[in-house]
Amino acid sequence: MKKIISLGEVMLRLSPPSNERFFQTRQLDIEFGGSEANVGAALAFWGNHVIHLTAFPTSEIGLSASATLRRNGIDTKYIKHTEGRIGVYFLEQGAMQRSSKIIYDRADSVFTKIDENDFDWNEILEDADALHWSGITPALSQQCADFALRALKEAHKRSILVFGDLNYRSNLWKYGKKPNEIMPDLMAYTNVMIAGTRDFNNCLDQEYSGFEAARSDLFSRFKQLEYITTTKRESISSSHNKISAKIYSKDKVYASREYDLSHIVDRVGTGDAFAGGLIHGLLNKDPQKAVEFGMAAGALKHSVPGDVLLCSEEEIQELVLGESIGKIKR
Amino acid sequence: MKKIISLGEVMLRLSPPSNERFFQTRQLDIEFGGSEANVGAALAFWGNHVIHLTAFPTSEIGLSASATLRRNGIDTKYIKHTEGRIGVYFLEQGAMQRSSKIIYDRADSVFTKIDENDFDWNEILEDADALHWSGITPALSQQCADFALRALKEAHKRSILVFGDLNYRSNLWKYGKKPNEIMPDLMAYTNVMIAGTRDFNNCLDQEYSGFEAARSDLFSRFKQLEYITTTKRESISSSHNKISAKIYSKDKVYASREYDLSHIVDRVGTGDAFAGGLIHGLLNKDPQKAVEFGMAAGALKHSVPGDVLLCSEEEIQELVLGESIGKIKR
Amino acid sequence: MKKIISLGEVMLRLSPPSNERFFQTRQLDIEFGGSEANVGAALAFWGNHVIHLTAFPTSEIGLSASATLRRNGIDTKYIKHTEGRIGVYFLEQGAMQRSSKIIYDRADSVFTKIDENDFDWNEILEDADALHWSGITPALSQQCADFALRALKEAHKRSILVFGDLNYRSNLWKYGKKPNEIMPDLMAYTNVMIAGTRDFNNCLDQEYSGFEAARSDLFSRFKQLEYITTTKRESISSSHNKISAKIYSKDKVYASREYDLSHIVDRVGTGDAFAGGLIHGLLNKDPQKAVEFGMAAGALKHSVPGDVLLCSEEEIQELVLGESIGKIKR
Amino acid sequence: MKKIISLGEVMLRLSPPSNERFFQTRQLDIEFGGSEANVGAALAFWGNHVIHLTAFPTSEIGLSASATLRRNGIDTKYIKHTEGRIGVYFLEQGAMQRSSKIIYDRADSVFTKIDENDFDWNEILEDADALHWSGITPALSQQCADFALRALKEAHKRSILVFGDLNYRSNLWKYGKKPNEIMPDLMAYTNVMIAGTRDFNNCLDQEYSGFEAARSDLFSRFKQLEYITTTKRESISSSHNKISAKIYSKDKVYASREYDLSHIVDRVGTGDAFAGGLIHGLLNKDPQKAVEFGMAAGALKHSVPGDVLLCSEEEIQELVLGESIGKIKR
Amino acid sequence: MKKIISLGEVMLRLSPPSNERFFQTRQLDIEFGGSEANVGAALAFWGNHVIHLTAFPTSEIGLSASATLRRNGIDTKYIKHTEGRIGVYFLEQGAMQRSSKIIYDRADSVFTKIDENDFDWNEILEDADALHWSGITPALSQQCADFALRALKEAHKRSILVFGDLNYRSNLWKYGKKPNEIMPDLMAYTNVMIAGTRDFNNCLDQEYSGFEAARSDLFSRFKQLEYITTTKRESISSSHNKISAKIYSKDKVYASREYDLSHIVDRVGTGDAFAGGLIHGLLNKDPQKAVEFGMAAGALKHSVPGDVLLCSEEEIQELVLGESIGKIKR
Amino acid sequence: MKKIISLGEVMLRLSPPSNERFFQTRQLDIEFGGSEANVGAALAFWGNHVIHLTAFPTSEIGLSASATLRRNGIDTKYIKHTEGRIGVYFLEQGAMQRSSKIIYDRADSVFTKIDENDFDWNEILEDADALHWSGITPALSQQCADFALRALKEAHKRSILVFGDLNYRSNLWKYGKKPNEIMPDLMAYTNVMIAGTRDFNNCLDQEYSGFEAARSDLFSRFKQLEYITTTKRESISSSHNKISAKIYSKDKVYASREYDLSHIVDRVGTGDAFAGGLIHGLLNKDPQKAVEFGMAAGALKHSVPGDVLLCSEEEIQELVLGESIGKIKR
Repeated sequence: MKKIISLGEVMLRLSPPSNERFFQTRQLDIEFGGSEANVGAALAFWGNHVIHLTAFPTSEIGLSASATLRRNGIDTKYIKHTEGRIGVYFLEQGAMQRSSKIIYDRADSVFTKIDENDFDWNEILEDADALHWSGITPALSQQCADFALRALKEAHKRSILVFGDLNYRSNLWKYGKKPNEIMPDLMAYTNVMIAGTRDFNNCLDQEYSGFEAARSDLFSRFKQLEYITTTKRESISSSHNKISAKIYSKDKVYASREYDLSHIVDRVGTGDAFAGGLIHGLLNKDPQKAVEFGMAAGALKHSVPGDVLLCSEEEIQELVLGESIGKIKR
Repeated sequence: MKKIISLGEVMLRLSPPSNERFFQTRQLDIEFGGSEANVGAALAFWGNHVIHLTAFPTSEIGLSASATLRRNGIDTKYIKHTEGRIGVYFLEQGAMQRSSKIIYDRADSVFTKIDENDFDWNEILEDADALHWSGITPALSQQCADFALRALKEAHKRSILVFGDLNYRSNLWKYGKKPNEIMPDLMAYTNVMIAGTRDFNNCLDQEYSGFEAARSDLFSRFKQLEYITTTKRESISSSHNKISAKIYSKDKVYASREYDLSHIVDRVGTGDAFAGGLIHGLLNKDPQKAVEFGMAAGALKHSVPGDVLLCSEEEIQELVLGESIGKIKR
Repeated sequence: MKKIISLGEVMLRLSPPSNERFFQTRQLDIEFGGSEANVGAALAFWGNHVIHLTAFPTSEIGLSASATLRRNGIDTKYIKHTEGRIGVYFLEQGAMQRSSKIIYDRADSVFTKIDENDFDWNEILEDADALHWSGITPALSQQCADFALRALKEAHKRSILVFGDLNYRSNLWKYGKKPNEIMPDLMAYTNVMIAGTRDFNNCLDQEYSGFEAARSDLFSRFKQLEYITTTKRESISSSHNKISAKIYSKDKVYASREYDLSHIVDRVGTGDAFAGGLIHGLLNKDPQKAVEFGMAAGALKHSVPGDVLLCSEEEIQELVLGESIGKIKR
Repeated sequence: MKKIISLGEVMLRLSPPSNERFFQTRQLDIEFGGSEANVGAALAFWGNHVIHLTAFPTSEIGLSASATLRRNGIDTKYIKHTEGRIGVYFLEQGAMQRSSKIIYDRADSVFTKIDENDFDWNEILEDADALHWSGITPALSQQCADFALRALKEAHKRSILVFGDLNYRSNLWKYGKKPNEIMPDLMAYTNVMIAGTRDFNNCLDQEYSGFEAARSDLFSRFKQLEYITTTKRESISSSHNKISAKIYSKDKVYASREYDLSHIVDRVGTGDAFAGGLIHGLLNKDPQKAVEFGMAAGALKHSVPGDVLLCSEEEIQELVLGESIGKIKR
Repeated sequence: MKKIISLGEVMLRLSPPSNERFFQTRQLDIEFGGSEANVGAALAFWGNHVIHLTAFPTSEIGLSASATLRRNGIDTKYIKHTEGRIGVYFLEQGAMQRSSKIIYDRADSVFTKIDENDFDWNEILEDADALHWSGITPALSQQCADFALRALKEAHKRSILVFGDLNYRSNLWKYGKKPNEIMPDLMAYTNVMIAGTRDFNNCLDQEYSGFEAARSDLFSRFKQLEYITTTKRESISSSHNKISAKIYSKDKVYASREYDLSHIVDRVGTGDAFAGGLIHGLLNKDPQKAVEFGMAAGALKHSVPGDVLLCSEEEIQELVLGESIGKIKR
Repeated sequence: MKKIISLGEVMLRLSPPSNERFFQTRQLDIEFGGSEANVGAALAFWGNHVIHLTAFPTSEIGLSASATLRRNGIDTKYIKHTEGRIGVYFLEQGAMQRSSKIIYDRADSVFTKIDENDFDWNEILEDADALHWSGITPALSQQCADFALRALKEAHKRSILVFGDLNYRSNLWKYGKKPNEIMPDLMAYTNVMIAGTRDFNNCLDQEYSGFEAARSDLFSRFKQLEYITTTKRESISSSHNKISAKIYSKDKVYASREYDLSHIVDRVGTGDAFAGGLIHGLLNKDPQKAVEFGMAAGALKHSVPGDVLLCSEEEIQELVLGESIGKIKR
């Protein structure tokens, strides 16, 4: 059991049941999800002590968000409840050749007004093993960027391993800053980055010709960097994908097998499940096992409705070993 | 069949099924509702040509909102679809001694940015018989107040009968203006007001000692005023209310019977159903019949889930006559 | 355990969930119900051997109808499955002051074409104790009228006690015959009639001034008649009724208590539940107990969704005795 | 935006949820659908002005049918509401090797009694660009055949482009006429036919040896004929099909790509979606684009529950271009 | 915020939706509930630190039980997960004159095998303010009785206030011991008892003629006893009850108002909600306020589905004050 | 129509809807299923007279279990209802690479206490054609083993063909006996065994090197043995399997085609559907047709939710012939 800190916005996710489109549905299923908390939930499900840092409204919907994280095993003691709104995202699940669709309604959420000084960093980070952030947080507001940077600095001060999912999204970054004004500072405190060439180009305002170019520049520019991790996804349709992942150290590569994923149930949060598995694996010091465990976690998430991987370590290990796939377990 | 214009915000209503509380629910039922459109929907259901003026997002959720009004018989030709968000309200249905609860998340909706000049008033108001507005619209933003005033002036110019539900809500009016800076101008163009003493005091910054004081002042101050209408509700519990209504002209009173409403299904929109019935009745020139028809419409709405009264004129007339109540109609 | 024959149409019942109106619903709950089979199902639930005679389509929907009767304990061995359609009725549950509404789509069902010669009356009626019919059957078609008359004659021949629920419905009787051309023959073979003054007037083309006038004429006209039973229902609203019943012999009256029925769940089939209880009671020869048992059965049905009373004898006896009402039974 | 007239029966579709069979289900999901109105709904969704001509009952279920078309953007002003019943079809969705199953209960619907003289053809067809009919309509009753023929003649008189989906169904045509007594007259006014060899053989009482034989005979026999369109479907299972389409002019062929459709959600209405796309494309004069747009529309429909394609032009164009398939759109 | 320990079995509750009976339902709604944990959940909802002591299986259903308590704010750190089964109870909600019905399937649950030595009492009870037990626990098995007695002794040693809901149930106590062999020892460590005459008679094998007789004997026999609390419930039907409560010290009585509870949603857990309110109130030293707060909590629970009161202190206070009942709160 | 006796436990099956995991679900769908009764239900669906022998509780849940078998066409006359519990199994449907999961809670069910002397074997077995048992029954308790042996002996005495599905499950057999102490006696009365090498090794405590070794030994050891049947399943994932079957007589082999089963809906009961088809086929004396019919039945079951194949003989024959696969049948 490790102590891990995750931080980031958690939104109310509303999605039509049974393949319905937004235009026709009369009901919405509720989940609460956000990239970093999804990572945290996976880690908590495997027995780690995960503290998530975020802000929710004081309303019953905010209380319910907090309770849902708690249900998933996350330590919610440090979550701030303040007046305001929760970010919302409407998710229409795709099927076949029809894409999934997300409509965001997240502007001005209480998370965007989070204050780094409201958190007792000594208490939160005491004896922590790892901290996980993503590029979504600094993209939301200056307060969010400040909050993320503070967290990373505090973690760095205490030699806590920092994982960062760069996760560049062009439809965010609306508060006046460009990624490369903000991201390099955060990347400088990050030991393991989950990112591809497109993320690096956008976050650093570069035009790397390919991943290898990016990789060599990154390792020379960011001295604390230990690993870069990338995932590859081939979309045959919304219901059928193929995925695989690689971990790169400065001079080595650890590749996972490729999974053929047909009959997809819910693709949302699959990258987060991978990130959770990766962190869980790397905290145990074996990159090869980590990339296999992470990818199996990511693969299994496609079969679970909701934002969160709800699969045990044993289930993931069985997939890594290729055992009992599709059997009925009694 | 009359031609009637209604105007106002329509929100996405999200409510837990089966008496569940926000804290525990995993699903939300979808409706689209707003006070003035609810009035319009009732009028359309009875065969009137109702044009509703509002704004929705261009997203599928905005298209669905528009389609839902259209399904209810409203003419949606003049609705504006622009980039932005739809106002949302979360409704937790009360039961027994537990109150119903509404959480608004309506700030910065596309309706609050509506522009009076986007509408072709000549075409919209041609041959119209009535226009209905409520005090919610001018409470939302300066643009909304301007839009309402413009509509009323245009209606007045064409001798269209104007109905206004003053509907003072203290938790709105956040854009810097006070009600009495805005409402008197609108009231000056209104022929039939739905309001009680509290509404008058707040809208006019008065301290009328009681309804009669308000009534006499109102009729002397607003020369175009033909009727004031008030409803009275006694809440024994969320599941059991008693309601009645009165129409006052300058010198006469028309009172409805009182309804004892037990086993309430959905209280939201009951005032709007009353207003719809009132307009329908008054356009036919008989205040006594209008108050009875309106109150019966309002009473029946308590039995229908959603924001909108979906009851025919015949059903309402049967209740007015006290016939067939609780029978099975085959 | 008695052997009882019931006969009559069973329809596919389709009703919107959760108080929704037809106009707004997106789903329909399925039941299969018909007055006489509802009576039979109650009797079967209490351990009697009940044979129901009817016809269904050969389609899966017809098979499902048959299977549902069988599930409820009815012997379905003699049901005919033929090409054609099943009668359908759409039921909108009322609430409060809003009435329940039934839309029939039953014309040309396979039952209307039933052939009396398709049934082996010797085998069916062997050792039977009672037969139950209703006035709905002869109202549907000449074949149905012939079928009912044949069944009654065959029962009479074997001294089987015949129960008949006259149940006059003005919107049936569309095949060219008037009730008084058909009903007197059927009444002549009936030992126990469930009916009120209105039924007698319509079935016999009389204008009895009141129940007592009808009663004395009926007992003198129909020599085999042992009892007339009437129920009285006061409808405060769709959610609140009061009911009671009386059994009249030629010279005695047996009255049940009155039940105050608030928070009604499903009123359909409550008269059938009463009839079932009445038959169950009268086969045990005690009219006073029969009227109390029947009325308690009818009262309890208001609390059970669907067409069929699914309450045990013990539950009904408890209500007769006024014990444990509203307690939690563990 | 074009003005397009569609005509044909719209039925109440009732289907068990979640892969259930008729025999086991307790609930039915409601849709309203019919081949020609499905075509109309697709065209309306893309911004065309679509008038649908049909008849519905006056009951709430008939009103709900009308309202549902209106919700989908169809102009319902000319729909007749008369006493009677709505056609019903029960749909059991297939899965895997199990076929989908439809039970029709459509006899004697109000549509079968439609009267061509109840429609103001001048007003309806004014400035129309196209009219769409199918071979289902003349198969239902003589009145329906007369109604279709009248519509086609009126369209022809005004040089409106006529599309016809021959759609021969052997289980219809029960009113005493054979297809070749009726269909040739209708085909004579049709500019674009959607049909295969089997349709031609049945409608014209021919025995064409293959499509090419039919094609050359058709173009020589029907002088107004501009295009014949055919689709080809290979059924690996209920969940997996392959489809493609071709447009033939007298001397040219335009072929679409083939779509591999796995994880099918709802196959009903996919031919109608294709027809809608075809009309939309051909009104813009480019047969190659029309066949690609139509086939992409048809392919996407397989992913949408219900009878109606609810996909925007942009979504269909993306599939035509092979972009973003299976991605999450944010 | 107080620290409170609750202990007792938590079962999987399975109940048919929408007033259905067990015999007809096809679905069961899931809750997890147990008398003492329900008390704990109410106390946690109001901000107290509540530790619940119980045992669950290691299966996903056991994990889900634990997670649900955690979601409700309970500290689940000390819950034991061992191989075995969870107790199950099937709940059929009553309605009208039909009683609610519970079928227990709780034998041999892992809780019945709980071991007092598996708990670190020093850590658990450190700085605790109160401990709550009920008479259900010692009725289940000798291990359970030992576990309860140990907890009470440990609490007594540390001067923690002990609340006990005697809750005699005749269908438990099947392991060979009689209540009066076990209960007196437990009552000797209890400061506040929730019980009526029937409980005292059964637990102490007495035949007190009435409550006053019991009260005087109890206070003289149990020296540590500070208060006895009783509730009174009048059942008009399953949907309509009246309730009130009293707290007795040795020489004083504190009575709550009576609540008239119509349109009951879910009666289960209402006694637990009262107990929770009572504890919350008494820990603040004012018996009059405690009895009013407790009874208002119990009354509100009737409106909330599930085992657990999910109402805030503010909502309960409003009911105590009689404010805003049945209003819509915006 | 044959008369067939099946015997074995029927459990309450509870499963989360819509791909949900146990940990997250809030609802459970109800089925009643058990291997042998599933076989019986398939046989009854095809018109055979099937008597199932089992025991259920007297509770409403036990009554509902019985009623559900009756609904599926099984003769439930000889089922025993006694005080106690029903066995429960919780089923989590797998998807993709995630396995299905079953949690059993079946200990101490009333079936495990079944008494062979409670059955009137003369009446039950009169004129029976076949009896079906499985290896689950003798694995549950000594009473169950005795009950099975008695049934087989009684069948043998009357020359009834005995089918046995050996179905070795290691997590049963907890009552002190080993399979080879019990199974050989039962196998000695069995004419057709459904089993693979693993079953033979476990039931006979052998270590056969492969199926052929087992086969030759079995046929020499068990003189009454006519056929051994095996099925082969390849699990690509929970959603995609391949299956085929073979029947072996002493010297011949009959092989079915292989089915490629993608988009699996519900795998539970597919082996039982195969067994039902096999029995149906073999009673008609054609092993080749039997293996094809059985395998097609098993294949189709994958598309039907629940434990029971609800497909007609015609549907299965169509699959055998490869006709109409994936078509819409109208």
